[in-house]
Amino acid sequence: MSRWEPNARSRLAQAALQLFIERGFDQTTVAEIAGRAGLTERTFFRYFADKREVLFGGSADLQELLVRTVADQPATVAPLEAIAAALLAAGALLEERRDFARQRQVVIAAHDELRERELIKLAALAAALAKALRRRSISEPAASLAAEAGIAVFKVAFERWILDSNQGDLPQLIRESLTDLKVMTTGM
Amino acid sequence: MSRWEPNARSRLAQAALQLFIERGFDQTTVAEIAGRAGLTERTFFRYFADKREVLFGGSADLQELLVRTVADQPATVAPLEAIAAALLAAGALLEERRDFARQRQVVIAAHDELRERELIKLAALAAALAKALRRRSISEPAASLAAEAGIAVFKVAFERWILDSNQGDLPQLIRESLTDLKVMTTGM
Repeated sequence: MSRWEPNARSRLAQAALQLFIERGFDQTTVAEIAGRAGLTERTFFRYFADKREVLFGGSADLQELLVRTVADQPATVAPLEAIAAALLAAGALLEERRDFARQRQVVIAAHDELRERELIKLAALAAALAKALRRRSISEPAASLAAEAGIAVFKVAFERWILDSNQGDLPQLIRESLTDLKVMTTGM
Repeated sequence: MSRWEPNARSRLAQAALQLFIERGFDQTTVAEIAGRAGLTERTFFRYFADKREVLFGGSADLQELLVRTVADQPATVAPLEAIAAALLAAGALLEERRDFARQRQVVIAAHDELRERELIKLAALAAALAKALRRRSISEPAASLAAEAGIAVFKVAFERWILDSNQGDLPQLIRESLTDLKVMTTGM
């Protein structure tokens, strides 16, 4: 087997997800993942530190996209609008990876520790978004509130997207949740 | 030592917090907590399953109060208003336990695993609030959105309350965060 394999990363990720769904996350070994992908364990460890990273390795990219999108908004854009722009960018990215995201969520939903890891990831994204707003001279508590409210919107839209493919694409669902939030708070 | 001790629970909790702050959570044993409180380990285990429960044993009460307050709102009350009422009730309860809540937060902030546990607790409270709204015939995604947005508001207000005692009491800070959220979404 040559050292270079085309699409090794995505072949490994796909093999891992299949096995996690078939056998459960805990019951799947790296050797099995590599075998299913027709690659070696050594190749697996060139791309992933461990099998959990197959599920969470993308969160650094997602965070970077969120933070960069907030930073790129014109100075006149209000905090929650900057957050909305970032969430829509993240939504578009995830929409391109819809099948992966859905299968990933099946694995996570079935496993307490992975669900907890997902919550921690979302909290880290909220903290990163708040920090990105503070760099735009938005003070606290406005920065944290916009970031946390944005993550609340994202969670709800993401859940709908995962559960039902007929509801629309993820950016559309994020827009709907933002509108719903606006209507809810207006009524208060 | 008699089997019945006045205020045993709160003496144990206070002794535990002191030790967690002085020595760190991991370095404190149940024997030391009981000793500091002038009680036995056996008495400790009548009140708490383990030392972590000193920090998280109150969350069942908090969840029950939140859920009951949502259920008690008149049928005409809108989802986010019902959530706001619940958060204000929880805020009033925590305000009565301000010293404990602050010391507890010092311990949690210093410990990764406890911080994660706190995030998981907040996610459980959001899920319980969403369920309480669904029992009021609020459909999804409105129920989850109101609950998650409410928890976002609560997190931000709680953080301010912990950091600075001059900012106001917790119910007041929750009201301010709700107003801030309303202003933010109106601007969109």
